[in-house]
Amino acid sequence: MSENIDLKCSKRLAEQIGFIVELDKLKNILRETRIIFQHRLENDAEHSWHLAMMVMILSEYANCDNQTDKSKALDIGKTLQLVLLHDVVEIDAGDVFSYADFDPKEKHRKEVLAADRLFNLLPPDQAKHIRALWDEYESQATIEARFARTIDRLQPFLQNYYSNGYTWKKYNITVDRVKKHILRDMKPGSEALWRFVDDLLEGAVEKGMLLPEVVEAN
Amino acid sequence: MSENIDLKCSKRLAEQIGFIVELDKLKNILRETRIIFQHRLENDAEHSWHLAMMVMILSEYANCDNQTDKSKALDIGKTLQLVLLHDVVEIDAGDVFSYADFDPKEKHRKEVLAADRLFNLLPPDQAKHIRALWDEYESQATIEARFARTIDRLQPFLQNYYSNGYTWKKYNITVDRVKKHILRDMKPGSEALWRFVDDLLEGAVEKGMLLPEVVEAN
Repeated sequence: MSENIDLKCSKRLAEQIGFIVELDKLKNILRETRIIFQHRLENDAEHSWHLAMMVMILSEYANCDNQTDKSKALDIGKTLQLVLLHDVVEIDAGDVFSYADFDPKEKHRKEVLAADRLFNLLPPDQAKHIRALWDEYESQATIEARFARTIDRLQPFLQNYYSNGYTWKKYNITVDRVKKHILRDMKPGSEALWRFVDDLLEGAVEKGMLLPEVVEAN
Repeated sequence: MSENIDLKCSKRLAEQIGFIVELDKLKNILRETRIIFQHRLENDAEHSWHLAMMVMILSEYANCDNQTDKSKALDIGKTLQLVLLHDVVEIDAGDVFSYADFDPKEKHRKEVLAADRLFNLLPPDQAKHIRALWDEYESQATIEARFARTIDRLQPFLQNYYSNGYTWKKYNITVDRVKKHILRDMKPGSEALWRFVDDLLEGAVEKGMLLPEVVEAN
């Protein structure tokens, strides 16, 4: 679409605007999670905004390499960029439901193709910078990337918990699957938020939001 | 809603989670701007995410107090927080259309009431910190606040420009009103992005997206 519009500006700014217009498509990518106060599914853009606000509010709970060394404390600005950006590849690759039966390698392959196309709409220096941020999130090698993932798992948990288990009930999710698909990913980024969610699971089963763990019969 | 749920955690974390759940309501606040690739109105959460991405991509165009003094360069992390946060008060106060006939004092009064209620859901130290960020945006006293506003005006301009002037046509907007309500607010934050939009206006009139300036008859 953008290539048909003469923007009367530098090639660099035209490429940046082209990318920004393309980003609008993230508002069309629906997730399996429902908005708490409205009966509709959430999209990736809303989800990403919510994660960023959660990073601002919950940063004190991030696991740090060294609590006494300020230089190793969480970089909030960097973490914001990671959560804002991490789902952009779903414009091409689509959202994959956490509890779906999918091949992680195939998912990653599709997302790398998407990153190659989308980020290269930008001027080369900026494409490289944005790609490095996305790679950082994927690598999970820094405290910022790990905390970003913790928040990415906590947000749909809260959406479900405050929607009386909407998505969990819809797909008959058992508590052990939450432990495997959500909780396990939270601990590397925040012991405190991992514990917070772990402490709510028993009650979620008692309230009928989640099914109890399946125990194999002998 | 949250007050009925026992979160089994510290009072501090429970207050933070309460605020985060309340934020979900921003996804219900509709703007007058349409999504580019879908025939529906945009909501405030999507809008805020898009602004944050634009800050990441366009920060090089911010007016700085001193281009050679790095300490006076734009703080991207701070600017991200300003754009992510600036519309949260609309959960209570609602969105006001830029071209509507409204009383700015009354709008501000409602938004201050909203800020008082919403931010005070947080623990006191954090309520104060978040309120200071919102006040900074409102004051327009820093390069970050001014650049945040520039981006807040540029985003709906682009949404309209790439939707063949959808909202402008719907409300018979003339080019002089875009100059008054959008363009004027952009210059303090970025001369470069102000010029970019200014250069597109004549073409937008020629393409029939905007009505020409109304010239009073003698």
